[in-house]
Amino acid sequence: LPAAPRAAILLIGNELLSGKVDDENARFLTRELRALGVTLSRVEVIPDDPADVAETVRALASRHDIVFTSGGVGPTHDDVTMAAVGAAFGMALARNLELEGLLRAGIGPRLHERDLRMADIPTGARLEYGLRDAAAAGRAWPVVVVDNVWILPGVPSIFRRKFDLIRELFRAEPIHARAVYSREPEGPIAGALDETVATFPAVEVGSYPHLDAPDYSVKITLDGRDRAAVDAATTYLVGLLGAAVVRTE
Amino acid sequence: LPAAPRAAILLIGNELLSGKVDDENARFLTRELRALGVTLSRVEVIPDDPADVAETVRALASRHDIVFTSGGVGPTHDDVTMAAVGAAFGMALARNLELEGLLRAGIGPRLHERDLRMADIPTGARLEYGLRDAAAAGRAWPVVVVDNVWILPGVPSIFRRKFDLIRELFRAEPIHARAVYSREPEGPIAGALDETVATFPAVEVGSYPHLDAPDYSVKITLDGRDRAAVDAATTYLVGLLGAAVVRTE
Repeated sequence: LPAAPRAAILLIGNELLSGKVDDENARFLTRELRALGVTLSRVEVIPDDPADVAETVRALASRHDIVFTSGGVGPTHDDVTMAAVGAAFGMALARNLELEGLLRAGIGPRLHERDLRMADIPTGARLEYGLRDAAAAGRAWPVVVVDNVWILPGVPSIFRRKFDLIRELFRAEPIHARAVYSREPEGPIAGALDETVATFPAVEVGSYPHLDAPDYSVKITLDGRDRAAVDAATTYLVGLLGAAVVRTE
Repeated sequence: LPAAPRAAILLIGNELLSGKVDDENARFLTRELRALGVTLSRVEVIPDDPADVAETVRALASRHDIVFTSGGVGPTHDDVTMAAVGAAFGMALARNLELEGLLRAGIGPRLHERDLRMADIPTGARLEYGLRDAAAAGRAWPVVVVDNVWILPGVPSIFRRKFDLIRELFRAEPIHARAVYSREPEGPIAGALDETVATFPAVEVGSYPHLDAPDYSVKITLDGRDRAAVDAATTYLVGLLGAAVVRTE
């Protein structure tokens, strides 16, 4: 992975688009990626439609270092993710014996023939157990990975458990963040923000009006991988804003 | 609009992708659209990048009846939505005198020259006040619409207020929903779901395992615009599942 990797999250599921279920997985993963130093540059939520999933996976995988999918990996008719990710990379599905063994051991005598569909994965997929030691890995359920696409389940508790397994594989250079709170609203400070952006091109500057905040009008955020540049941009902006600054973080 | 319109939501803002701010607007609008009978078929979250916004707006607008954008409409450097939506449709920005008048009246003497940027909209845009009477409309801040793209602000309280203005313009045929709760997990019931899907192609069937539910394993949802078909599919599925059914809704 590059030092500043770019990721996308693809949530697959009609239930998210109909409002029956609120997303928990993108919300969780957004914070995890930020803490890891991975730049999240896109989230998409799409239906359980095989062609849409395949086309979207292909587009996201070509434009990002890492793609995480969530949902559509069970044994029922609306579980289309494995076939669609395979289609995105021109791979058929085939029964994976390692996964079949884990399913048989995990579900035991209640295993239904249909459950074995969850062992059908794209032919070029690999199984990723993360950085655990071999004994722990042997007991874990791995993450299925196709090229740069990491396929995670939709059930939030399992999503988090599986991401825990692989989290440290994505550790990157940290992103440093500062904030400046302005008494003045956006109009009067827009020029100072422009100057700061122009002077510190490696620092990402965001401006967010907070209508209900007790003592400020705008929160300005300054982010970047170069801590010295972020600090210098913050000092520069504070100098330009003068008496408008309520506080910095 | 068609009787069964398809919509997309585009959230624009680095703050959502960095996890600094949790989305409230897509969550709100998803429920509103469902209640209105509008099919939400995609949500995307992207950065404040003009080229990305323009390209994404163009793609979404060509594939959906309605696109709602959220964010990027203030007066600062990171507010790129108006220019980018204009670029998506080949329109330049121009100062709109009606919006300028509303800004001057609304902000009053505290108006900063830079705030007038919020009156710069694509040349082919229209202003939409919704279905209110003319007197009420004259006092409201309109929604800027370019072709089928409805441009809403990112601040949640204002987003909701502006959507309230236009909500009834999107009223469509209602979506009927039923649910069946199964004691059996997904593997054993997958065949019955397949049969139901094949027999009732106009009904959307979803299957959702709930690991922590007290008395069932799977919630099955059946949705459609044809109430009789949804009810018939529910009866059919309940017949197939037999003793596995805990209850229906």
